Parts: sequence; C-alpha cells; structure tokens
Amino acid sequence: MTRLHDPALRGFASDNYAGVHPEVLDALAAANEGHQVSYGEDVYTQRLEQVIRAHFGEQAEVYPVLNGTGANVVGLQAMTRRWEAVICSDTAHVHADEGGAPEKMAGLKLLTVPTPDGKLTPDLVDRQAYGFGDEHRAQPAVVSITQSTEMGTRYTPSEIAALADHAHERGMRLHLDGARIANAAAGLGLPMRAFTTDVGVDVLSFGGTKNGLLAAEAVVVLDPGAVLGVHYLRKTSMQLASKMRFFSVQLLALLEGDLWLRSAQHANAMAARLDAAVRDIPGVQVTQPVQANAVFAVLPAEVTERLQKRVRFYTWDPRTGEVRWMCAFDTTPDDVDAFAAAIAEEMAG
Amino acid sequence: MTRLHDPALRGFASDNYAGVHPEVLDALAAANEGHQVSYGEDVYTQRLEQVIRAHFGEQAEVYPVLNGTGANVVGLQAMTRRWEAVICSDTAHVHADEGGAPEKMAGLKLLTVPTPDGKLTPDLVDRQAYGFGDEHRAQPAVVSITQSTEMGTRYTPSEIAALADHAHERGMRLHLDGARIANAAAGLGLPMRAFTTDVGVDVLSFGGTKNGLLAAEAVVVLDPGAVLGVHYLRKTSMQLASKMRFFSVQLLALLEGDLWLRSAQHANAMAARLDAAVRDIPGVQVTQPVQANAVFAVLPAEVTERLQKRVRFYTWDPRTGEVRWMCAFDTTPDDVDAFAAAIAEEMAG
Amino acid sequence: MTRLHDPALRGFASDNYAGVHPEVLDALAAANEGHQVSYGEDVYTQRLEQVIRAHFGEQAEVYPVLNGTGANVVGLQAMTRRWEAVICSDTAHVHADEGGAPEKMAGLKLLTVPTPDGKLTPDLVDRQAYGFGDEHRAQPAVVSITQSTEMGTRYTPSEIAALADHAHERGMRLHLDGARIANAAAGLGLPMRAFTTDVGVDVLSFGGTKNGLLAAEAVVVLDPGAVLGVHYLRKTSMQLASKMRFFSVQLLALLEGDLWLRSAQHANAMAARLDAAVRDIPGVQVTQPVQANAVFAVLPAEVTERLQKRVRFYTWDPRTGEVRWMCAFDTTPDDVDAFAAAIAEEMAG
Amino acid sequence: MTRLHDPALRGFASDNYAGVHPEVLDALAAANEGHQVSYGEDVYTQRLEQVIRAHFGEQAEVYPVLNGTGANVVGLQAMTRRWEAVICSDTAHVHADEGGAPEKMAGLKLLTVPTPDGKLTPDLVDRQAYGFGDEHRAQPAVVSITQSTEMGTRYTPSEIAALADHAHERGMRLHLDGARIANAAAGLGLPMRAFTTDVGVDVLSFGGTKNGLLAAEAVVVLDPGAVLGVHYLRKTSMQLASKMRFFSVQLLALLEGDLWLRSAQHANAMAARLDAAVRDIPGVQVTQPVQANAVFAVLPAEVTERLQKRVRFYTWDPRTGEVRWMCAFDTTPDDVDAFAAAIAEEMAG
Repeated sequence: MTRLHDPALRGFASDNYAGVHPEVLDALAAANEGHQVSYGEDVYTQRLEQVIRAHFGEQAEVYPVLNGTGANVVGLQAMTRRWEAVICSDTAHVHADEGGAPEKMAGLKLLTVPTPDGKLTPDLVDRQAYGFGDEHRAQPAVVSITQSTEMGTRYTPSEIAALADHAHERGMRLHLDGARIANAAAGLGLPMRAFTTDVGVDVLSFGGTKNGLLAAEAVVVLDPGAVLGVHYLRKTSMQLASKMRFFSVQLLALLEGDLWLRSAQHANAMAARLDAAVRDIPGVQVTQPVQANAVFAVLPAEVTERLQKRVRFYTWDPRTGEVRWMCAFDTTPDDVDAFAAAIAEEMAG
Repeated sequence: MTRLHDPALRGFASDNYAGVHPEVLDALAAANEGHQVSYGEDVYTQRLEQVIRAHFGEQAEVYPVLNGTGANVVGLQAMTRRWEAVICSDTAHVHADEGGAPEKMAGLKLLTVPTPDGKLTPDLVDRQAYGFGDEHRAQPAVVSITQSTEMGTRYTPSEIAALADHAHERGMRLHLDGARIANAAAGLGLPMRAFTTDVGVDVLSFGGTKNGLLAAEAVVVLDPGAVLGVHYLRKTSMQLASKMRFFSVQLLALLEGDLWLRSAQHANAMAARLDAAVRDIPGVQVTQPVQANAVFAVLPAEVTERLQKRVRFYTWDPRTGEVRWMCAFDTTPDDVDAFAAAIAEEMAG
Repeated sequence: MTRLHDPALRGFASDNYAGVHPEVLDALAAANEGHQVSYGEDVYTQRLEQVIRAHFGEQAEVYPVLNGTGANVVGLQAMTRRWEAVICSDTAHVHADEGGAPEKMAGLKLLTVPTPDGKLTPDLVDRQAYGFGDEHRAQPAVVSITQSTEMGTRYTPSEIAALADHAHERGMRLHLDGARIANAAAGLGLPMRAFTTDVGVDVLSFGGTKNGLLAAEAVVVLDPGAVLGVHYLRKTSMQLASKMRFFSVQLLALLEGDLWLRSAQHANAMAARLDAAVRDIPGVQVTQPVQANAVFAVLPAEVTERLQKRVRFYTWDPRTGEVRWMCAFDTTPDDVDAFAAAIAEEMAG
Repeated sequence: MTRLHDPALRGFASDNYAGVHPEVLDALAAANEGHQVSYGEDVYTQRLEQVIRAHFGEQAEVYPVLNGTGANVVGLQAMTRRWEAVICSDTAHVHADEGGAPEKMAGLKLLTVPTPDGKLTPDLVDRQAYGFGDEHRAQPAVVSITQSTEMGTRYTPSEIAALADHAHERGMRLHLDGARIANAAAGLGLPMRAFTTDVGVDVLSFGGTKNGLLAAEAVVVLDPGAVLGVHYLRKTSMQLASKMRFFSVQLLALLEGDLWLRSAQHANAMAARLDAAVRDIPGVQVTQPVQANAVFAVLPAEVTERLQKRVRFYTWDPRTGEVRWMCAFDTTPDDVDAFAAAIAEEMAG
C-alpha cells in the first residue's frame, strides 16, 4: 500500500481531519494476532472496563461503539422509553449534525432550545420541560448537553451539577455528549469525573476519535439505574464491532495512561495560541470564549474566501460570516503561526 | 500498550475471532499523518472508488461502512420505500443474527423462507413473492441472498442469475450479502463480478472484516437505478466514519492487489482440510457441502462439550447436536490437524 | 344524504363488509349533543371502564382505539422494549395482514411459526423461544395468539392456559388478538374471562368492528404489570380519538348488555349452517373445523370463479383453491341457504 | 343505551368537545345496512372522490383516515423519503400536540421555527431551509403550514402562494394541515381551492372532526407528483378503516352540500361575538387577531382559575396567563353571551 497523500498538510477544518496518534497505531498492533472472542468478550475490553471504572467510579459501565452518532443514539435510547423526548440546545450535534439519526433510527423527539453559546441552563431547560403526564406531548425524559460544546465553550462542574439537579428533580436524566470531553477536562484542569460522575451526569458519550483515535467512542453509563438494555441496543443500532478488541484497545491507549490529556491539552493550547494571535488582527472578531480546541470568529466573506484557498476550514454561519477554526492533537505551533500570518495578510488585503 | 493476550491461540469459533492481516495494518500506517478531508472526500476513498469499478464494472459505486449489519441495513433501506419488504432465507444473517436491526432501525419487514442449505431458489422466493398491490401486505421489493451462505454453501453464477431474473420480472431487486464474498469467489475460481454484476445482482454488502480487516465493509451499488439516497442513509444509519480514509484504505489493501483472494483461498483450503480429516472419523457427520470456509457437522453432545473445553467453537443447533467450525485467513494446517486429532480423540473417548 | 347502495345485498367475503348494528347507531345518538371532554375523560369512557372490569376482572384497564391494527400495535409496543420481539403464527393477522405496521411503526420483530390451523402450542412457541440474553437475537418477549383464529378455529381455555404458563415460565407475556373474541366465547359457551384473565392472558386486543360496530376496538390490559405507557403509546401511534365518547359508547352498546354475545352466536350459527349445507355437496372439502364464524373449503378454481360472479367472497390460497366464507351478525338463514344452493349448482355445473 | 350526560352543557375548551352534527348522524344511517366492500372500494368512497375533485380540482385524490394526527403523518410520509425533514412552526400541531408521532412512527425530523402568530413566511422558512445535499443535515423536503393556524389566525391566498413558490423553488413541497380548513375558508369568504390547489399547496390534511363529524379526516393529494404510496402508507400507519363507507359518508355529508361552510361560518361568528364582547372588559387583552373560531386572551391567573370552575376552557401558556377559547358548530349566541358575562363578573372580582 503506497501512501497517496501529503503527510505534511494540515488545516483548521476539523479535529477529525487529523489522523491517528502513533501510540494508538502501536496499540492496534499489540492487540493483533491470535484469536480473541468477538463482540466484546476479549481481554482488551475487560481491561478497558477496569480503566473506565478508575476514571469514572466503580459503578461505571462501558460499551465501546463505532462512532459518535452511534454513541449518542445508543445512549439516548437506553435512557428513554418509546414515548419520551430529549431536551437539547439547537446547536447540539445530536440535533444539528447527525442527519436526523435520533429521530429516524430511534424515534427520539428532540426538544430544542436556542442558546447563545451552546450551553443549556436550568432556565433554558424549562422552556421545554413541561407537559409531564400529558399524552399529547412527547414526554421530556432526558436533558442532553455537550462538553466541551459545539461552540468551543465549556461548562463548569457547578453548572453541570445545577443541570443534573434540575433534571433529576423533574424526573429526567442528564446525558453528556463528550465527543470532546478530554478538551473540557484539559481546559478545566480537572479529572473527567469531576464534571460527570461527581455532579450527577447519568450517561456519557465518551469521544475518542476527535482526540487521536482511528475510530472508537463509548457509551459510558455512570448511573446504571438510568438505562435499560444498552448491550442489546448497541447491537440493534448497528454499533457492535465484531473485532471489538481493536476498538477497546484504542480507548485503552487513550485512557490507560495520560494520552487523552496530553493530546487534549496540546490541541487546546494551539487554539489558545491562535486566539491570541488573531485577536490583534484588526477586523477579526472572536465570537466565543476559547475554552477548548475551537476558535470561532467573524471575518469579511471575501477574506474567508481567499483564506480557504490557502488553508482548509469551515464557514459556520454564512449569514454572519462566522467561521470555525479547530485545532487537533497534531496541530503544530508553526501551523498556528503560519495560519495567523495568512489571516493577517488576507485581512490587510 | 502491552499485549494482554496469547497471540498463538486460535480456534474454530468464527472468522471474526481472527485479527488483522499484517498488510492491512501497514496500510493503516501508510494512510496516517497529515490532514485529510473527513467523511469520505479523501484520496484513499477516491482510489477505492476506482478499484471497485475495476472489480465490479464502471457503473459501480462504493460506500464504505462500519460493520456488516450496517452494510445490510443501509443497502436494504436504499432499495426499499417505507412500505416495502425483503424476502430472505430464515437462516440469513440479516434475519437471524442482527438483533432485529432491520426492523427496529429501518422498519424493514423480512419475509422469510426455510431453506435446507441457506440458499434461496425462484420457487422458494415465490412462497413470499405475492400480494403485489395489496396494501394489507408489506410489498415484496427485494430478494436478499448471502454468498457464501451462513451454512457454508455457495450459489453458482447461474443460480444467482436465475434469482435475479426471477426478481426483476416481478419488479423486485436482488441484494447480495457478501460478508464472505471472497470465500465464494475463491471457491468458484471466478472473479467476484462473475456472480454479481454479470448476473444481475443490484446491490452488494461487501465484506472485509471476516477476511482480515480490522473493521470495514461497504455498500457496493451495482445498478445505481436500484437505490436512492445511499449517502444520506449511511449517515442517518450511524454508519458514516469521520476518519473515512482509514476504512477506505483497509478495503484498498484487500482489493487493490490479491490479498482478498489469497486470504479467502487459504481459509477455504483449511476448511477443506478439516472436512477431509473429520469425514473419516466414525460418528462425525458433516451436514453441508463444504464450499467456503465453514464446516458444519453433527457430533454427540457430550463430545462437543469436552471438545469445547479444548478448542473454541460454536454449537449451531442444540436440538440436533450440529456444530459449526470456521476457518480464517490465519488458520494454519497445524491448527487443523491438531483440531482433527482432538475430535478423533474425543469421539473415541 | 341519499342512500347510494342496495341494503339488501350481502355476501360472504368478510364480517367487516357488514354495517353497524342498529343498537349501536342508537347508542351513538344517545351520546351525542352537548360537550364532553375529549380524548377519554368523558362519562361514556368512564362507564366503559366499569363494564370492562365486570367482564375481565377488577384489575382490567381499557384503552379504546380506532382499529384492529392499532389495537395490536399499541398493545404489543406496551409489552415490549425496543430490543424485543413477538412470537406468532405465520397466519396471524399482525404478521400477514397489517402491511408491516408492527415493524414499520413500532420496530417490532415478529418471529413466525407455521401452524396447521392458526393455533400455536408450547412446542411451536419453542421453535422461536430461544436466544434469551443473546444480543444478536431480537429478544422474544411476547407470544401473540388470535382467538378465534384467522383460520376460524379456536383455542380451549386449557390450551391458552398452557401457552400462558409456558410463556410466563420463560419470562414472556401472552397477548391475545381478539378481533373475533366474541365468536370464540360464543363457540365455547363461556364468558370471555374464562379464556383470558382466568388463564393468564396479559393483554388483549378487544375487537368490536367485526361484531357490528362502526369502528371501535380496545387495548384491554388484564395484567397491568405487563405493560408500560399504554396511554402515551395510543397517542404516539395515532390511535387516540378526539371525540372519544363515540368510540367508548359503541363498545358500551356491545358489552353493557349481551349484544356482543347475541351477534356472535348468530354469526357462528350461520357458519355452522353453511358448513352443514356444503359438507354434503360432492367435491367441496371443508378444510378447517368450523368453530367460529368462518368456513374454509377447497373448491375447483373454475367453480370459485363462477361463484364469485354471483356472491362476493375471497380466495384464501390460490395454489390450493382454498376459499374463505365469513358470516356476520347480519347474515340471514336465507343468505346461507341461497349461497349453499348456488355452490351446489356451480359444483354440478 | 341510556344517555349518561347533560346534552345542554357546552364550554369553550375545544371544538372537539362538541358532538356530531345531526346531518352527519343521518348520513351514517343512510350508509348502513347491507354489505359493502371494506377498506375503501365502496360506493360512498367513490362518491367522495367525485366530490373532492369538485372542490379541489380534477387531479385531486382523497384518502380518508381516522384522525388528524393520522392525516398529518400519512401525508408527510408520502411526501418524504427516509432521510428528509419537515419545516414547520413551533406551534404547529404536528410538532406540539401529537406526542411525537411523526418522529416515533415515521422517523420524520421536524425543523421548527418560532412564529409570533402561528404563521410561517418565506423568511422564517429560510431559517431552516439550508444544508441541501449535506448528509449531516436531515434534508428539508416539506414546508408544513396550518390553516387556520393553531393561534386562530389565517393565511391569505397570496401568503400561501408565496410560501408554495418559495418551497418549490428550493425543491421542497408544501403541506397544509387543514384541521380547521373550513374555518379558514369561511373567514376568507373563498372556496377552499382558492388557498390550496390554486396557490400551489401539494398535499392537504382535510379536517372534518373539529367541524361536526364523529371522526373522519382525509389526506387530500392536490399534486399527485408530490407523493408516493399513500394507500400503502395509510395501512402501515394504522389509519385504514375496515368499514370505510362510514368514514367516507361523514365527509360526504360535510362536503356534498354546504354543511362544511355553514358550520364553520357559525363557529367563526361565535368567536367574533365573543371577541367583541370581551374586548370591552377592562383587563382582558385579546392577543391574536380573531380570524377563525378561536379567541386567545390574557387574563389574571386568579380570574382564570375562578372562571374555569364555571366554564371549561384551557390555559394556553401558564407563564403569561394566556387562555384559549374555542367555538364550535354548536356554540350558541346565548353560550357566548353568558360566558362573556361570566368573564366580566369575574374580572370585576
């Protein structure tokens, strides 16, 4: 197999444009050879279960899945009965970027709330948390938040605690989409359990792919009383890997040591570096606090157009000219500096 | 990451107990580093499209997915409208082993037919191919066959041609679950298109995982007129990989050269060797012709029990004592000979 | 509104070709005028709840719905979780005549068993009652039987008791499709509870439409521990009538007095009269015991063709020449005698 | 059957608290007796097809269904493929009051837009009409509006024409939820086709139940090119009545003469009378233009509480104190005057 691409080329489009961390490729090789029971009864999955408990508490259960949409849809199904609904921000990935998978595959109704920064609050939840007992309304049963959010912001532990308490008091459960949970932990300087298990999150979509894995995510159940049938639902949702050991070992490579944290800290640092560099460029307006590995900014449309010919990134909102710049585990300081220079050049026109 | 398992241990439980072919791991490394557009607009996916056309004809389209259930459910959705149904054998994987995913995720009704050997015929199809136009009956729209079958048997090209003609004459389409398509091609001594494109198969689930990949399957559309919306359905069905290059490159590693054929020929040869070895053991009855990489046999239950303590394999039907022995790309002649000796010992025992 | 049809014309096609019993039209008028709370909080629905308890026991709950497919799909959803399945005969209405509604609307997987006479037995159930705990198999959770069956046969109370015990011992529940429950009760000479509540049926689809109602069926829950969320599922399944009083009052008209029994006894008697009349006609072979309001018989195809020009009825199986003759609450002895004479004529033909 | 309720009691809670218009009961009796082919091949359904064409144009097709949720879900399914979505107001019945049926039964994703008065505009549609071709976004395929709206307002024909043009230019179709279409027509003083067929509406949920029927709605297809498989989808969606003649004849009773218009004009006039009467009561603020048969107003919460003990009506928004008063075909001027007097009394405290 010959390499067909330029390994030196990197952009700011998405953390999933990046490849696989070398330590993860090594782990795949370590798990290879010989036969292992498929579908999860292998030693790597067993070891992962221990490691997850070390991170998230003795009650935690882990179900590796194939991608992030799968993690969200499996987890949310396990938390809801056929007639129930999920409250989320209208920028939530599960609503905005999953092609309708929750509705189409699982019949989940999403009750959305506009948010300024991707973050729900108890007050915002209340805009949809009503009608309990009324059969004409899909019953709100889960609040789903994203940490760090799709807008590059993050919740404090106490903000999540407030949401968990609010949900629980109303008979609802709290789901956390952690596609970038490591970036949140790195930003907060806290272990992941400090803003999940310890503050009342019930179920977590643990994200690995955006943090240097080839492809591996997991449904992590923090309160087993919040779910039913996860292992069945993983299969019915087409998210059960036959050669499970290779998915579990990726998550092990990330979580057994501190790779998860090192990679996330690095990506966050690159975003902070970019934020700092562009804030001084006249005409560039950073629109969200940079609290993880994303920078959102407003540029003139013609500048964006010229820049996108040089470096790959996405326009977030064509109406406002807002763009999104993502940093990854493999983004280098030179990448950032060169990109900031390019922005400055094009802004100067 | 330390190795946690014994790489010398192999059994006859399933071809998905095996690991990843070394050439595939090399391909993953070759595709690594640098940034590539996610979700399929990368150079490895583009190259795969060419390679698929070389195998299956210029009209062929390929959509890599994450697992075999995903390939089946995405392909069958693309071939059916909301009110339609799929005719298949009652041993078909899509009916018997996918946890109800077709029904639960896609609302597909499966109309099943008992078969002696896992193979449909036009007459067997007709047991379900009726009621066209009658709204009280889910409308038969697709015939789905498996090649090689779940029973280790295979169709000849003319048998498939007859099914395709039969289906098309009745306004139905033909789907082929090719989880073990390479084993069928190796057994037939024919290119894959000889029993797919050339004889009227419309859509194919191409299987790679059971033939030495880490995890990669594909929906291969052989007649684009038979489907609608595959790329949307792959996403809504949670089967779209973000770092697609690593799925496409696995399929490339298999299909660009002859790895697909070498591995399948080897697995088939090992099954033939096992078949030959056990046929002479008094009391062992091989129940299906060995035409791919599986051997089905009936043993006394107490022998099976003792054997399973020594070597891993599955009981297929506890009522009859039928067991299934699968060979993989990494099964060795010594594995086979030692297993046959163990069977002989326990039968004598 | 002028009458557009001939009120004297009746055939043997289906009990739902018949109209509405006059006492039911009177009941609709009685419930009319003034305002009543919609969606079920009206006095007629309250009264129906009492009447249902009188018939089926103090624990029974009733949820009127709009049609039989609705009753089955709502009831079966309430008895299953997302990953579960239903075992039924392959002639069951829910499998053969509902257009795939259970799969398409509710993701229910039906595990079917061929039966000679439409009746399941514990042994037949066991052909599908396996794989408990195995995520690759949709989990059998409900056994669904029809009483009287689609083949015009009926279960004895002890046959149902055996099925209930068998199901319960395996952690499954028993559902009874009672689209023609009154015909079964009339045939058995027993109250309905003798073969439902008293022998372990958990949930019942109570059928009224085929027994002289305009349109009203009900999910009757006999063991509230067997279901979850019926009132939500009725709404999400599009089966909640806004002007519920008019559906409840139909069921009241049937069940408060003995209209249900009178009508069913009459229809059964007409079927028995037809059975007796045709058994003596050379060449007519009655294929099922006539235990309710249906007669199944095999005739020469050309005779059927000529007969169908004179009187409306359905061919059941074009391959064998089997036809179905249904009697309704409004079938008269003269209708039967004239039809039997016509059959004799055409057979002599 | 004895009458169990007080036929003189009427309130302002909902037009579906009202009963059945006497002419409709007469029509049910006219259609009774004798046998008619079930499931829609009867003379009343045939006649209805003619009458619908007279109202909506020669191309119009009618599919009677059982309730309004059913009409919406069947129609929207017929207009969408598995991966598509529907844009609607966040007060739309299909989103707010159907228990999630569209998502749960049909996998429809609803893309909602806040509206001040329940009415979409092209600009409001554009807040959701984007992402065409992007597999990460459920594809907008239908715009669904309600006429008259859930807020008691109505669109002009030119407003609907603008929405139809806007939708069609973007490859979308226009669906109209006409649960109260007659009230809109009466208010506009126009035939129904003037704001449906003639201005580009593709599919209509025709509402009869809120306008004096027992239970009958219909999917009316105005552009057959906009739909696929309606008759199959009606069955799979549990909306096919067996004794169809009784549903079709209700719609005939409404539409063959001018009952639809008389009843709607009356209900609208009663709402106008109530509007006029309460506008002069100090402290009562009518919040929406009264353009159909609903009056929305804000009252002090304690007044509402006292009033609701005297006359039944619903609080619309507990946060603002907004209430909804609905008039029906059987609301009398005396009912309105007495209710207005009661409001005045309670406001005076």
